[in-house]
Amino acid sequence: MVIPNAYLRLVCGFDLVSRRCRTDSEYFRFAISKLAIPKPIHFEQPYVLMSVFHYQLLNRDRRTSARRGFFSTPHGPVQTPGFMPVGTQGTVKGLTIDQVAATGAEMILGNTYHLALRPGHETVRRLGGLHGMTLWDGPILTDSGGFQVFSLEAIREINEEAATFRSHIDGAIIKLTPEHSIEIQESLGSDVAMVLDHVVALPAERSKVVEAMERSIRWAQRCLNAASRDDQARFAIVQGGLDVELRQQCATELSAMEFEGFAIGGLSVGEPPPEMYRITEATCPYLPEEKPRYLMGVGTPVDLLESVARGVDLFDCVMPTRNGRNAMAFTDQGKIKIRNAVHREDTEPLEKGCPCLACRHSRGYLRHLFVAGEMLGPILLSIHNLTYYQRVMAGARTAIENGTFAEYMEMKKAGWGVS
Amino acid sequence: MVIPNAYLRLVCGFDLVSRRCRTDSEYFRFAISKLAIPKPIHFEQPYVLMSVFHYQLLNRDRRTSARRGFFSTPHGPVQTPGFMPVGTQGTVKGLTIDQVAATGAEMILGNTYHLALRPGHETVRRLGGLHGMTLWDGPILTDSGGFQVFSLEAIREINEEAATFRSHIDGAIIKLTPEHSIEIQESLGSDVAMVLDHVVALPAERSKVVEAMERSIRWAQRCLNAASRDDQARFAIVQGGLDVELRQQCATELSAMEFEGFAIGGLSVGEPPPEMYRITEATCPYLPEEKPRYLMGVGTPVDLLESVARGVDLFDCVMPTRNGRNAMAFTDQGKIKIRNAVHREDTEPLEKGCPCLACRHSRGYLRHLFVAGEMLGPILLSIHNLTYYQRVMAGARTAIENGTFAEYMEMKKAGWGVS
Repeated sequence: MVIPNAYLRLVCGFDLVSRRCRTDSEYFRFAISKLAIPKPIHFEQPYVLMSVFHYQLLNRDRRTSARRGFFSTPHGPVQTPGFMPVGTQGTVKGLTIDQVAATGAEMILGNTYHLALRPGHETVRRLGGLHGMTLWDGPILTDSGGFQVFSLEAIREINEEAATFRSHIDGAIIKLTPEHSIEIQESLGSDVAMVLDHVVALPAERSKVVEAMERSIRWAQRCLNAASRDDQARFAIVQGGLDVELRQQCATELSAMEFEGFAIGGLSVGEPPPEMYRITEATCPYLPEEKPRYLMGVGTPVDLLESVARGVDLFDCVMPTRNGRNAMAFTDQGKIKIRNAVHREDTEPLEKGCPCLACRHSRGYLRHLFVAGEMLGPILLSIHNLTYYQRVMAGARTAIENGTFAEYMEMKKAGWGVS
Repeated sequence: MVIPNAYLRLVCGFDLVSRRCRTDSEYFRFAISKLAIPKPIHFEQPYVLMSVFHYQLLNRDRRTSARRGFFSTPHGPVQTPGFMPVGTQGTVKGLTIDQVAATGAEMILGNTYHLALRPGHETVRRLGGLHGMTLWDGPILTDSGGFQVFSLEAIREINEEAATFRSHIDGAIIKLTPEHSIEIQESLGSDVAMVLDHVVALPAERSKVVEAMERSIRWAQRCLNAASRDDQARFAIVQGGLDVELRQQCATELSAMEFEGFAIGGLSVGEPPPEMYRITEATCPYLPEEKPRYLMGVGTPVDLLESVARGVDLFDCVMPTRNGRNAMAFTDQGKIKIRNAVHREDTEPLEKGCPCLACRHSRGYLRHLFVAGEMLGPILLSIHNLTYYQRVMAGARTAIENGTFAEYMEMKKAGWGVS
């Protein structure tokens, strides 16, 4: 009995191991190798088969829409709610891949736009895909390039066929179609490919928002049609600006299509946080319960918890690394600007109890590194901030399990000085 | 029986542990803690007492002057011949302290000049000294500032009392005396302090070289007189330009003074390598057998082996990190310029068999990191080059033990394309 596009889960001792296999004998060989049985035997029962890309809902918060689960991929599961560090050009800036793992991250993000321009997706493929190149052995998600085309608005033209833009590296004219975006992402070999979407700057006329939303739905279908890898999931992206009706319409239409997950896009582009929370809150109920939900490009720690409370499972943001490089550290007591003279002879760590490398050093030393222009300053603060984000999310997961998520969020917000 | 300024060595299982103690009961408490004996007992014999700063000669090569030994410090021993990575401003550029240790380094170097200007030696002291600040728990050597004053020649004035220069940071006038250099290094808390010396640019008139050499000897004595920490060793620095007679005279005079080690300074300042080898070869025999010898600021891998062959024990150089940041990697087959287009889709590591982080990645990925301007490129190549230097030195130590150092050096030089 073989279920296409399925994988085997086995409990070996205390470990849950999984492998995607195409035939029964492959399952058996895999199971046997894991169980250290010296020669093939016939396996009867039990083995559990399910989709490679399976979202398992574990707990639901009673007082908020927060949910605790995990999402399986060919490179293992990611616990949700979860935060993905951003590895724009095939590296989480300043961190070795071991350091990324040590922050607690389970899934990372790569950028189709940047990698397609440099080193080129064919080169990435020949170097073993993003996994082979970076040596990250967990799940990877790649965006579609849609957001980068949007954020380089001055040099783009979007029509029904494609987004056309100039390379920021060499000025070459590049035409990105939904099909090409999927082709690139299949070369990159990510576990999750995002559909190409049409993002509009806000505020915008309703007709423009409608046009971009409708086009995003058509492009989503073209992405599905173009996809050929069955070890890569496709996530749709809900558009619709700050218009609840359009967002819900878009979510409903995309939910009817065969996606393994759903993202909310086009937010965190300058609108006030309450607007973002309002749209997220209105959109999540229109997305399938049994699929993961990903809020793209978000955000501050408080944005993360407010969005978890509204039903979001996955996040990505450059903020922990970018702010780290700029000498700003996140802590339970709010932000620390480590260049401030008050830290000159401060022997305390950034945050007591934080297990990261940076917090083994004193604030005085970290300040010195930034003042002296040493690379180690940005490295250590990036490590700290990524570790902090993972700790906030791990705390959120535990709180949902314990039924105390609302209290957890209030406690964190009080520490951050957010009402 | 207590020997002042002594430490205890104990063989615990396979580990050699050491601790500096002031009383017999301290020795016993330490020994008991290491041996996991539940309560104090009276210790008879054997325990070995020797100077904290003890150089132990283990093997001598028959065909060269290479020697294998170790040098003990309050922060443990360093195996010699050994290479010290340079941590100019209290950080080996781009590496976390765990990564420095993972390269195989046992002793690192800090710069008195840079640290005195920023963050200031009093601040370093209040932050726990260099050890407390960097969390490096092995030995640290600090230079005296003499070389930096020399290399900033345009803005200095040197007379018998002091070297006077302008800070490269804020232009402040700074007067560095031998006494002040020692005071700074005592605040930094290094295991080894270097004496302040007078370095002259080469070529120079003989009278100038003689003047600087004689002043360096007087300043060395002033450093000894000023020193107050008995947990810090002082190393003298032999000057004398490219004049063998002056070098030997300087070495002889310094050897009569109470230093725990001896450096050869004022080399690797632009003279051809054979000149450097000639001076090193002529100087080493005039230094005490029972003390370590340190060739300052040297050098390329071939410089290291050629100098080991002439009797040098310790080295430091910025080359592995500086070249690494500039996309150049050292290997057994010579240098690799990783930006070269030939590496674009190269799936091989920099060096097969190298255990470093960089060599788990492909050359193609490393090239991409540099071309894309990502920090991880300089980080990984610095790690590789430091690991390479340590591997070359570890190989030299083993070769000396096995009586095959000459063959080892020839084999390495053949790989590097050096005749």
